[in-house]
Amino acid sequence: MASTGTSISVYADRIKRAQAEMAAQGIDFLLVGASSDLFYLLGFNAHLSERLNLLIIPREGRPSYVVPVLESPLVREKKEIIDLAIWTETESPSELVAKIIGNASGKQLAVADQLWSVFLIRMQSAVPGASWTSANDVLRALRMQKDDYEIDRLTEVSRLTDEAWHEFIEGGPISGLTETETMERLQSFMAKRGLRGGFGICASGPNSASPHHHTGDRVLQHGDAVIFDWGATLDGYHSDITRTVHIGEPGEEYRKVYDIVMQANQATLDAVTPGVPCEDLDKVARKVITDAGYGPQFLHRVGHGLGLDVHEEPYLVGGNTMPLAEGMVFSDEPGIYIEGKFGVRIEDAVVCTATGGIRINHATRAITIMD
Amino acid sequence: MASTGTSISVYADRIKRAQAEMAAQGIDFLLVGASSDLFYLLGFNAHLSERLNLLIIPREGRPSYVVPVLESPLVREKKEIIDLAIWTETESPSELVAKIIGNASGKQLAVADQLWSVFLIRMQSAVPGASWTSANDVLRALRMQKDDYEIDRLTEVSRLTDEAWHEFIEGGPISGLTETETMERLQSFMAKRGLRGGFGICASGPNSASPHHHTGDRVLQHGDAVIFDWGATLDGYHSDITRTVHIGEPGEEYRKVYDIVMQANQATLDAVTPGVPCEDLDKVARKVITDAGYGPQFLHRVGHGLGLDVHEEPYLVGGNTMPLAEGMVFSDEPGIYIEGKFGVRIEDAVVCTATGGIRINHATRAITIMD
Repeated sequence: MASTGTSISVYADRIKRAQAEMAAQGIDFLLVGASSDLFYLLGFNAHLSERLNLLIIPREGRPSYVVPVLESPLVREKKEIIDLAIWTETESPSELVAKIIGNASGKQLAVADQLWSVFLIRMQSAVPGASWTSANDVLRALRMQKDDYEIDRLTEVSRLTDEAWHEFIEGGPISGLTETETMERLQSFMAKRGLRGGFGICASGPNSASPHHHTGDRVLQHGDAVIFDWGATLDGYHSDITRTVHIGEPGEEYRKVYDIVMQANQATLDAVTPGVPCEDLDKVARKVITDAGYGPQFLHRVGHGLGLDVHEEPYLVGGNTMPLAEGMVFSDEPGIYIEGKFGVRIEDAVVCTATGGIRINHATRAITIMD
Repeated sequence: MASTGTSISVYADRIKRAQAEMAAQGIDFLLVGASSDLFYLLGFNAHLSERLNLLIIPREGRPSYVVPVLESPLVREKKEIIDLAIWTETESPSELVAKIIGNASGKQLAVADQLWSVFLIRMQSAVPGASWTSANDVLRALRMQKDDYEIDRLTEVSRLTDEAWHEFIEGGPISGLTETETMERLQSFMAKRGLRGGFGICASGPNSASPHHHTGDRVLQHGDAVIFDWGATLDGYHSDITRTVHIGEPGEEYRKVYDIVMQANQATLDAVTPGVPCEDLDKVARKVITDAGYGPQFLHRVGHGLGLDVHEEPYLVGGNTMPLAEGMVFSDEPGIYIEGKFGVRIEDAVVCTATGGIRINHATRAITIMD
């Protein structure tokens, strides 16, 4: 798709495309709270709190934007494409929503996934007679296939993340540091490159066998496998990469497992092409790992979409028959977790192009030994 | 209340108190996703994502905890007080919830506020016949009145935040920096003291008239009023404080407005005592500001509860007749915003005790002039 940047016409176009999807799917109103969905549709980072911000898109015509009075100055510049519906501190935003929607009897109202339940429950009471559904089918149709601007941002944030990794692995010993201190060092190299909102897991020794380990106070030591799964954002777009290192010379089992995960990662990449069902990528990775005898130790799906959210559609998981399409960006992250001993995961971000998958992470995948 | 710390018996007790509230309010099941509510009830910081984590508390008996297999190692240590219901990547967590709840016909299901709507919509479909309501009435009854441990943590995080502020205002000129750079400097003094998850607003010059301004690239300059509204966490508990400084000698109007806001802040504190309706604190602040001729420029409520969330119950806002009670902790933050010119806000955290309000922020409230 053409490069878009972030001018107001981009958002006007996205709203128009959402309305076309709504018509195709029989949705009357799309309700989007403070979230990445809102940022995608309006280019506005609303404050996530107990005060309702809500973009209301009707199937036809101009959207409304429900906003607390003290945040209304922030969204004034969007008035070209939305009508502001401002509520003061003692007014009910749900009643304002009800007024905007009007008679909802028999109408299909689709709610964006990350809206807090408290708002949905209040609206279900204030807007009786409507049918409530998830807006995911509408929004993923727009968000899954990235345009040129989005792929450019994802490529750049991934490149800077790779750079930070190389500075980290060449930056001296990590044994003796806690997991938290180690992740802070890595994130400082991200922040130095202008990346924001850093997140991540540092899982050391036996903790590396817990895929979503909470980074903690364990001190890294000689003989540890250490999994780093981290990222940050540039202009709202996320990097997400995993590398596994070994402190000191690894043993035979680690080398064997590392090699199997590498093969699964490569086989998944090789299988990427438009039209292939998402679940097939998971199957490809799982076959490599199962054939090597570690099937039960591969505890999670092989990947997830990546963009304004760190996890988004498409999910590369068993049961998801949706076909891959050009412009999709997702993680390729097989792993093997041997309880009580160690784990290995290797993750890259991949773009699906007309001619196959292209990695946008280029940090070294070779066995990495640190002190 | 007695000091509690964070041992497993604390969480067993909180769950028991939740069940007593459920019985009193006619709630059959309480459903709590990844959120501060979950951390309060279980001491577990679940990963917030598209994978459902859900604590299900029945009115009587043992709670269940729905958890994705790859995150299940993290919650094993809680097995003394919950039954784990683990779902694998290709299973439906909503169906697992339906199985745990059983026949829901005529049952009252209360959902914690911050659960994503996507989960609620799926559960409403998987668990037919139930009535869905907000869990806020149950949870605020537990969370609003802090115990000794919680007040100790809130006092300590506020003290460290005050210290960071003093280091900041004595730390050299800020004119010439952008808002973002200035907030980063302040947050570095927070991080240095072990505070995590820093957040904040730096609103300079005319931006200070926008109460929830998005910190940006504007360069601070001589003649600016600059509002700093920021905080961070210690053991999960938030600080939240606002100070307004002036770069260079301020004019008469700024001094006058600053003095009115100070008076409103003090009058609000003086009105704190158990039994007073929340809205009365807002009225007290509003009267001071209105009498001085700036009523329409005080755009927001005077305060909000503070604890595991930076905004939580009780809200000090017109219409909220709930009486204050001992152990409540909330902000006292009147402000005046003069569009196109400047704003002033002064915010402290306050504890309601048997004998009145006690500030837990002690950073200087005197007019502060920086370079």
